[in-house]
This record gives sequence, structure tokens and C-alpha cells, in this order.
Amino acid sequence: KTRNTTGFFAAPEQELLCIFGTGDFGRSLGQRLLQSGYRVVYGSRRPHSCGPLPQGAQVMSHTAAAAQSASLVFVCIHREHYDFLETLAPELKGKVLVDVSNNLKKNLYPEANAEYLQRLIPGAHVVKAFNTLSAWALQNGPSDASRQVYLCGNSAEAKEAVSEVATKLGLTVLDRGSLTAARELEDFPLQLFPEWRLPLRLAASLAAAFFFYLLIRDVVYAYAEEGKDISFRIMVSLANKVFPIVSLIMLALCYLPGVIAAFLQLYRGTKYKRFPDWLDRWMLCRKQLGLLALAFASLHVLYTLIIPIRYYVRFKIAESTISKNKTSVFDTTLAWRADSYYSMGILGYALYVLLGITSLPSVSNALSWREFSFIQSKLGYLTLFFCTLHTYLYGGSRFLSPSTYKWYTPPGYILSLVVPSVVLVLKLLIILPCVDRTLTRIRRGWERTDPEDDTKKSLLT
Amino acid sequence: KTRNTTGFFAAPEQELLCIFGTGDFGRSLGQRLLQSGYRVVYGSRRPHSCGPLPQGAQVMSHTAAAAQSASLVFVCIHREHYDFLETLAPELKGKVLVDVSNNLKKNLYPEANAEYLQRLIPGAHVVKAFNTLSAWALQNGPSDASRQVYLCGNSAEAKEAVSEVATKLGLTVLDRGSLTAARELEDFPLQLFPEWRLPLRLAASLAAAFFFYLLIRDVVYAYAEEGKDISFRIMVSLANKVFPIVSLIMLALCYLPGVIAAFLQLYRGTKYKRFPDWLDRWMLCRKQLGLLALAFASLHVLYTLIIPIRYYVRFKIAESTISKNKTSVFDTTLAWRADSYYSMGILGYALYVLLGITSLPSVSNALSWREFSFIQSKLGYLTLFFCTLHTYLYGGSRFLSPSTYKWYTPPGYILSLVVPSVVLVLKLLIILPCVDRTLTRIRRGWERTDPEDDTKKSLLT
Amino acid sequence: KTRNTTGFFAAPEQELLCIFGTGDFGRSLGQRLLQSGYRVVYGSRRPHSCGPLPQGAQVMSHTAAAAQSASLVFVCIHREHYDFLETLAPELKGKVLVDVSNNLKKNLYPEANAEYLQRLIPGAHVVKAFNTLSAWALQNGPSDASRQVYLCGNSAEAKEAVSEVATKLGLTVLDRGSLTAARELEDFPLQLFPEWRLPLRLAASLAAAFFFYLLIRDVVYAYAEEGKDISFRIMVSLANKVFPIVSLIMLALCYLPGVIAAFLQLYRGTKYKRFPDWLDRWMLCRKQLGLLALAFASLHVLYTLIIPIRYYVRFKIAESTISKNKTSVFDTTLAWRADSYYSMGILGYALYVLLGITSLPSVSNALSWREFSFIQSKLGYLTLFFCTLHTYLYGGSRFLSPSTYKWYTPPGYILSLVVPSVVLVLKLLIILPCVDRTLTRIRRGWERTDPEDDTKKSLLT
Repeated sequence: KTRNTTGFFAAPEQELLCIFGTGDFGRSLGQRLLQSGYRVVYGSRRPHSCGPLPQGAQVMSHTAAAAQSASLVFVCIHREHYDFLETLAPELKGKVLVDVSNNLKKNLYPEANAEYLQRLIPGAHVVKAFNTLSAWALQNGPSDASRQVYLCGNSAEAKEAVSEVATKLGLTVLDRGSLTAARELEDFPLQLFPEWRLPLRLAASLAAAFFFYLLIRDVVYAYAEEGKDISFRIMVSLANKVFPIVSLIMLALCYLPGVIAAFLQLYRGTKYKRFPDWLDRWMLCRKQLGLLALAFASLHVLYTLIIPIRYYVRFKIAESTISKNKTSVFDTTLAWRADSYYSMGILGYALYVLLGITSLPSVSNALSWREFSFIQSKLGYLTLFFCTLHTYLYGGSRFLSPSTYKWYTPPGYILSLVVPSVVLVLKLLIILPCVDRTLTRIRRGWERTDPEDDTKKSLLT
Repeated sequence: KTRNTTGFFAAPEQELLCIFGTGDFGRSLGQRLLQSGYRVVYGSRRPHSCGPLPQGAQVMSHTAAAAQSASLVFVCIHREHYDFLETLAPELKGKVLVDVSNNLKKNLYPEANAEYLQRLIPGAHVVKAFNTLSAWALQNGPSDASRQVYLCGNSAEAKEAVSEVATKLGLTVLDRGSLTAARELEDFPLQLFPEWRLPLRLAASLAAAFFFYLLIRDVVYAYAEEGKDISFRIMVSLANKVFPIVSLIMLALCYLPGVIAAFLQLYRGTKYKRFPDWLDRWMLCRKQLGLLALAFASLHVLYTLIIPIRYYVRFKIAESTISKNKTSVFDTTLAWRADSYYSMGILGYALYVLLGITSLPSVSNALSWREFSFIQSKLGYLTLFFCTLHTYLYGGSRFLSPSTYKWYTPPGYILSLVVPSVVLVLKLLIILPCVDRTLTRIRRGWERTDPEDDTKKSLLT
Repeated sequence: KTRNTTGFFAAPEQELLCIFGTGDFGRSLGQRLLQSGYRVVYGSRRPHSCGPLPQGAQVMSHTAAAAQSASLVFVCIHREHYDFLETLAPELKGKVLVDVSNNLKKNLYPEANAEYLQRLIPGAHVVKAFNTLSAWALQNGPSDASRQVYLCGNSAEAKEAVSEVATKLGLTVLDRGSLTAARELEDFPLQLFPEWRLPLRLAASLAAAFFFYLLIRDVVYAYAEEGKDISFRIMVSLANKVFPIVSLIMLALCYLPGVIAAFLQLYRGTKYKRFPDWLDRWMLCRKQLGLLALAFASLHVLYTLIIPIRYYVRFKIAESTISKNKTSVFDTTLAWRADSYYSMGILGYALYVLLGITSLPSVSNALSWREFSFIQSKLGYLTLFFCTLHTYLYGGSRFLSPSTYKWYTPPGYILSLVVPSVVLVLKLLIILPCVDRTLTRIRRGWERTDPEDDTKKSLLT
């Protein structure tokens, strides 16, 4: 490694790497390696039946020779075909073997693919890496999430070698320790929205519960008490009651853990005690709760906007126009309330969408921490306030009318108001100047102490 | 290159680079280089008439001296002014010249700018690089796509030098070979949505075809047979028939190549044979097909939602209310069908939008491969199913009524149902357990063989 | 630093770094450092009361020992607790101290935190860095904007050391000079949408001005002249007049600086003279102007779509149906105009949304410069044209009717048409072939000169 005549630092000139397997991943990896200045040799038992290999790559059907030519070998074949590698054990001795494989399911095999490979060829240094990357990401250049390469292995030297290649491909390496971590790495690509599971389950339960509640209160009640069949309302009217209710509750649940955490810190007088586990987990899925709430709100908007083109609504309007056939008196108070109701809904939804847009990875990354928390906190509470007010205005003066309490049950929207009202009241308490001051000090590291505690602390320092 | 006293690795201290030209690009590049720890000297014939140069940069109106001071020179001037460089040929001998120029049009000149520069100054090592970056991206820090720097040149050493600078600026280098690739690199920034061309042309043809078909069936028919002028319907009613039809067909065309590929693999019994070219090309533009389908669906939604505020619709409703002037009977079946029709449409559109959001680069990059394929495949077919059902429900019982077949032509929506129905039926066949099992095995590398083939294979290994 | 036996370049083996403070940031930073192959030792006065430290990190309650063990120390504690560091001055002598702190407000302290730290421990090399990163970004892997690390300090060697660590964490380093820049760096995370301030203020002023103008023209006029109380219209009708007006004006203001700049270049005959400051600043906030215009347009769309479900509108329709009670004549011209009006609005809004989507960071980064300018310029002017036409069609034949000029004031929409009409006419002039040709030459560097100038230039070269 010397400086060349022009005074620039020369790269290890055209290092040769070997790839076993000519599947999608092997081909894409080879192309990327070639573009980054490596030489590539493929080892393939069937070099002629595979897709087109990247230009500039060498192909050897004699895999043993291919293996011997390079000190680093990428194993891009399915685990089922690993056994053929056993025959190459002598040639692979001392080489770095990179296992990029994934499985179709979790727990399909008793040991991780990489550990199996290490057992087959004990003389090689197996490194698990690149398995979270897709062939597609390799071809098109990595970006954002797909820039991270997790690796693990028992040889620090081998890991360093792989890490150097990854860095040269423009990737960021995260070392996960020894080869026993291989199973965890192989499970990464099999995860299906792990952080969405809880919020989705919650949304589904809420939606189901309110659907049946309203089904009984509206459709069954009308059939039982008045003998009318209004089951057709399930498709739009009922759905359009369930969606906003679930949306409002989910939005409130998105801000509830924040106020609980604040009160917990106030009560404990310190920020250095950990939150209970359930609160931690709840706070980690706030983004998902909020996005699901937005999805339900959007459905509510669409279901509301098609109201006037529905057959049922048109029929009702025509009927009432004909039956009355005389001008009723215009109610200005009602007009004020109805228009405020719509306005609050629209403004709330617009802020909702704004929150959704800022939680797009590329947008939130472009914001500073202060900007992000301004939007997600200040604008978030404003959204919750608008949407709650929208629901209160929907109820209007009907809250106290006994006729709305069919079979002694309250209408759905009243139930949906409980959580958001609680959250807004608690938040109001927190932003009172005296409470806010204490909380800010606690969050800056200040601790409320009694004399006893002080003694302990001086001992520690 | 030695280790300094604090034990850290010292960078080549303040290397000096030269920039010719003080245009937007030259200024931005200089600023970025300075921020990354280089010293910069500008060579400009008119140092006082240009915009403000970055602080810390040196400016020399005597360009020969500027060129001599650095071993790497960025040529940030238009090709038309290259001739002046010829006079500097002696000073530029042995230097690395980075050509960052682009042209206004393809094939404007007989040879690439970089090749022209090399011809003018044969003693220098010309490297084509940075031309795909914009001044704006340099100033604001590169991100995602704009992080990639393509370079080509005849001297490996010169390329390595440029590559080192690019890496230090936080960019990823992709080597495209010798200087003959310069023309290709210079064409990159001139490309205008190459991957959108085919889908856009398809969408435009479909829209035009259905527009004229429906124009004849609706407007011309009404004029010819009934003597009524309903040409005003072109603006909204006709548009709102064309948009959903094109959207549904495009969505189906987005999933058709996938099922064709599956059947091809089943028929061939292997995944190792390449797909025909037309299928490959078709599969590569699925994302664009889907996004265009979403655009048309969105137009359909907006056109549908304004229906009740249209003058024509209000007039018709008032007319029918007045003319009937008696209550007709409420049709529960019709209410069910109409509401289901709207519900399917809304749910289909909501999933459509979800698919669109997940195809945003920043969102799809944050998904694992399995998550991405779950959304694009499972949710994609669900979307297609909802939208197809929406269209069937629109037709309702009118399918068989002869009155809808004006001039013996079927209504537009019936034509639009052909492709999606075929896709859904084929997909249904594929997910039958027995077919699915075979397909999964094939995609894992298994091959259906006859004894003859087996012999061939063993010879190859 | 030697080459190891497998022939790969070995990293500085497990360098030890010290972190003072076990808050969120310190913990996240430690975890990230461990993942990137460093060894980490924490210095904490209260090692047991903090949250869980990353696995593999060492913790020392004897901070002096911790400080002595490493040559680079991250100071992750609040400025208020810096005084305790003074006691460690002997141990910290010659070490690199990285100040990552931020303040709650601007100008809270007379000197920057990093300068204060340097004053406390004059023997150490203080480097300000990492303060623009959040704990969250460190934990989840940096992406896009959060990949940039600004640093400043008086010792080039110390900065190089910090820069090496940052690069190893996958971050891009931007050197901001000596420690006097620390104050500027500490203000970065406190900025709240600096580039949005002007456009937001403009939008608010426009909205307020038109709100009061229309309040007087509509509500006050109706009360004063006709004695009717139509104040309920404020919530929806009035809002839905203000929003489109502000949207159209903002969209036009987004394209106005571009045409002004073009005319300025034509007038001056050169592109090498700087634009006046106000024009530069205006051009820099075009994106924000456009996005705010889109927000107002979206509100206009939602407010328009709920029209038919409003109580007031339903009441009016029923009243007019009943009162007339006979079929009026259908006006085909009116139907054409109304439907065209809606169509233009929808198409304009669709393009508007497209412009908004392409200005998402992840989408615009995936576009080449030519594609981006095609969309933002060509499609932008088309959007402006559609929206302007939409407004003209809204006015229709009412422009000249004197009854619309209540109290001799023109309706709001006429006022909103002034700026967009001017922009469109100016743009039309620019794209005339003869003007366009001159402009293109100027933008390629050509200058209109008189003989006198020529002499000057030859002297300069």
C-alpha cells in the first residue's frame, strides 16, 4: 500500500471475490461488486442455464478452482444445497465464507443456516451478513433502511474483511457479535410489521366491539321495537359510525401515554426511574396508533362525502320535500351548529393529514428534533381538540334527550368521547404554568429529594 | 501518512483542489469541498463578475497558475468554452481533469464532452464524473438517489483519485469503465422519466379509445336516435366513465404479468429459464402502471364526489321530485346494492392509496422485503378484488338488459371487467394448494426433470 | 497498523471511548459506538439510578479513572452540571472533549456551551459536534438529513479524531471551523421552520385580509342593507371563499419570482449579475409558498365537497323545489360552463397534488434535475393555468353585472385573478420563440455586450 505518483491514495487494486450461486441475489451482488471496483468470479455448477451474469464477471463451472482463487467467498445458494459445499471443504479452508441466506419460515431448521454452514466446513470463517438486503436493493443502489448490513461471526478478522467490502459498497455495518446471533439475523427478513401488530389488534377489537354495539342499538332495535328492516344501513351508515369512533379513540390513545408519563415523572419527582414496561411499549407504538387513526378518519371522510349520492338519502330527501310541501322555518342556531361541526371536522382532518405527512420517513428526517416534536405534540393536541369538538358538536343538544338512550344504552359517539376528554383535561393540567415549570425542571435532570436521599447521593459520587 | 501524537489517524492535511469556472455548479462544489476539509482555488477569467464565491476559497484570475497549484482540476465550464483550456495544455499535463459538464440535448455534438476535452489536452487524465449531481444537491447535502456518483475514465489511478474525493464528500461511487462510457453518463441527466414512457402511452391510448367509444355510444347516440344534445356531459359524466375504466384496466395490467410469469414457470417446471423480453419489460413497469391507475382512480373519486353539486344533477333531482310529487316505494334490495357498491369503491380506493404510499421511496426502503411483497402482492390483489366487485355491483342487474346494448355495443364498464376478471381467476388457480406447492418448490430452485435432463446435469457438475 | 494474515486491512482494534453521562443521548451514543466496533466506558456519578446501559459497555462511578482510560471523551451532560468537570481538569488534559449539548432557548447563556467547557478545562481540546443528532436518530440508524454531523473546534487534530468516529458511525461530517462557530451550531436544533416563517406570515395576512373584506361585503352588507342575519355563513361559505382565493394568489406568487428573474436577465443581458436580495429570498421560499397554496386548495376541496350535506343547502334546495313546483327550462350553456368549471378545478387540484408529492424529499431525490424542473416548471404553470381558468369560469358572465359590485367593491375572486393573470401573460411572453432563444443563450453563459465592455473583458483574461 504505497502512495502513487500523482499523490493520491491507491485502493487495493482490483481485489478478487468469489460468488457461489447465480440466482437473483448472486447476480445482483456481483454486479454491485464489479461497479465498486472488485473483480468477481462465479462458481456455478450450471453456468449456462442461469440468467445473464453481469458483464466483466468470470464464470467457472469448476467450483473448487473458483473457491481457491479468492480469499472471500459469498455463498448465495439455498440452504438445501449446502451439502455440495462439503466436498469443497479442503479448498475453503481458511477462507471467509459469507452466508447471505434466508429461510422461508421461522424455526424451519434446528440451527441457523450460518451455523450449519460452519459445521459443514469447520476450517472456514463463516460470517453471516447481507441477508437483510434484497437483490433489488443491491441493483438499484441502497438507500435509507436498506443501507444497513447486520453481520455476525466468530472471527473478528473475517468480520472486518466483510465489513470492508460492505463499506466499499456504500453500506453501513452493524456488528451483532458472534455466530450465535445468526438465527436472530435470519429472522429479521421474516418479520411482518412487528411494531404494527399491537395497534392493529387494538383497532380491530375496537372496530368489532363498536360494530356489534351499534348493530344492536340501531338495526336490531329498529327490527325488534318498530319491526323495520334497516339492515342495508350496515354497509355505509353503520360503517360511518364505527370508523370515526375508532379513529377518535385511537388518536386519544396515541396521546394518553404521554400525559401518563408526565404525571408519573411529577409523582416520582425524577426522570431517572424507568417507566413500567407496559408504558414503554405503549409509547413505542404511538406512531402506529396515530397512523391507524388517520386511516380510519380518512375512511370516515370518504363515507361522509358520498352521503348525498346514496339512493337512500336521495329517496329520503325527495320524500320529505314532497310530504312537507310547505316551507318550514330556517333555524339559524342549527345552521351555526351544523356548519361549525363540519368546519371542525375538516380542520381536524387537515391537521391529521399534516401529522401523517410529517411521519413519512423522508419528511421526519428532514426536520430537526424540535420541529418534529412541535408538530407531533403541539399540532397533535390541536388535532385531538378539533376532532373532539367536532364530535361534541355532532351530539349538540341531543346529549340529554332521553330518546337517544335506546334500551338504556348511550349512543356510540358519547362512548367515543370519554378517552379524548380525559386526555385533553389531563393535558390542560400539565400546561398550567406551575405544573409545567416543575415538569421542565425534572426533564432537565433536576430531582426532588428528601434529606435521606441526599446522603445516599453524596456517597455515590 | 503517519499516526499523530493523540493516536488518531490523520487525514491528508488540507489537500488543494482547483476548480475552473465560477458558475452555480463550481461555486456549490467548492463550498462542499471546503466543508469537507479540502482547500480550494478557483481559476476564473472574470473573478469579479461572478456571484459570491464560498468563504475560504482562493481565486486566481491567472488560470495557468491555478491549474499548476493542484493535481486535480474540476472543469466546471460549458463545453463551448473548452477551447480556452487548450492554451493551458502544458500546465495541465499529468493532471487529473474532472469533466462535470452536461449538454442541453442528446446528440448535440459528435463526441462526448469528456472525450472532446481529452482530445484537446491529451496529456491530462480526463475523468467524467459528478455530472448527474445538481448544484442544489451539492449545497444541501446529498441524499438517496443523488448520493450516487457515476464516473468513467481511461486512467485507473485518476479514477481512484476522483473516487477518493467523492467518498470524502459523502457520495457513493459507481465506476462505469473507460472514457467511452462518457456519452452514456452525459445522457443520464437528459432522460425524462424513461420508465414512465410506456405506461403513460398505454394510459393515454386506453383513455382516448374509451373516450371515443363512449362519446359515440352516449352523446352521438342520443343525438342521432333521440335528437337530444347532451354534449355538455363530456366534461364530467363522460370523463367520470373513462377514468374508472382506465384505472381498473391498468390495475389489472399491473398484476397480469405476475400471473403469466407464474404459469410460465409452472409450464417450464423451472425458474432458471429467462422470461421472454416483453414479459421482463412489462414486469419492470408494474410500479408505474399501478401509480397511473391510482391517479385515474383519484380523478374518478373527485369527479364522483362533485356529482351532487352539479347543476345538471340538481336540476334533474328537482324535476323528478316535482314531477312525481308522490312517494314511491323504497327498494331495500336497491339500497343494499347501492350501498355495497359505494362501500367496495371506498375500501378499494383506501387500499389503492395505501399501495401508493408504500411505493414512496422512503417508505418502501423502510420495509423489509417480506413486508414489501406482502403489501404489493396480498393487498394488491385485495384492491383489485374490491375494485372489480365495485364495478360488478355498478352493473348490477343491468348486465342482461338488452336496452343497455345501444347500437349492439356493450357499455364501457363491461369491457373494463374483462382483464381484471381474467387476472383474478388465474390468481385463484395459482393459490390452490396443489398448484401453490409446486410453484413454491420451483421458486426455491427445484426443477421438474425427465431422466434425460438428469444425465445432462450430472455431466455439468 | 499492519496487514493481517488473510490479506485484509485491519481496523484500529477495539478503540476505547469514554462517555460522561447516562441520559438518553449518552446511552444511545454508546450503543451505536459499540455496534460500530468501539469499546465504551461510561463515567457516571450515579451508575445505578439511570436507565439500562447498552450491553457490553463498562461503567465506572469513579469518573476520573474513566476519563483517563480513553483519549476521546463524549460529554453528554447538561451544561448546568459542567462545573463538576472542573475537578477532573488534570485527568482531561490533552484529551479530546466532544461537547454534544444543546440549550432550551437561544441566548440563554453569554457564551456557547462548548466555549464554556473549553474555559473550564483549558488543557483539553474541545470539539462541538453531534448536537444536531437526536438520541432517536442514533438508535435507529441515521438517515438523510440526520446523517450530517456539524463540528467545530480549535484543534484540527481533535476535529479529525472526532470526524473519524463520526464517519465510522455512518455519518457525514461538515466542518464549520473554529470553536467560535459553536454558538451557531448550538442554535441549529432550536430553529423552528425558519424557511417557513415568511410564507406562513404571508398566507396568514392574505387570509385575514380577505376574510374581513368578504365579511364586510357579504355578512355586514346583508345585515345593513337587507336586515338579514347570515352570520352562520362564516363557518363554511366564507371560509370556502377565502381558502381558494389565498391558494390561487400563493400559487401565482410561487411562479412570479421566476418570470421576474427571467425578465431581469433579459434586461441586463447577462446571468452573471446577482439578483437583488429580495428576489433571491423570494425564490428560496417558492417550495413553501407552493405547499401552503396546496394546503389551502385542499381545504377548499373539502369545504366544497361537504356543500350538499349542509343543513343550509338542503333547506334552500327543498325550499326552491317546493316554491317553484314547476319544471324550469334546462340551460345547456350553464351546464357546459358549470361542468367545465368543476373539471378544471379537479384537474388543477390533481396536478397540484402531483406537484406536492414530487416535492417530498424522497421523491424529489429520486428524480434527475431535468425531471424535477420539468415537473416543477411545466406542470406547475399548467396547474396555475387550470386553477386560473377554474376561477374565470366561476365568475362566468357575472364579471360585468353591476349587481355583484356591492358597495362598489369587486367580489373576492376577481381580486384573486390579478396576480395569476399577470404571471401567465408574462410567462406567455417568455416562451415566445424569439424571447426564449435569447434567454436560453443568456443562461448558457452568453452575454450581450457593447464595444466598451469587450475591451474590459479582454483586459481581464
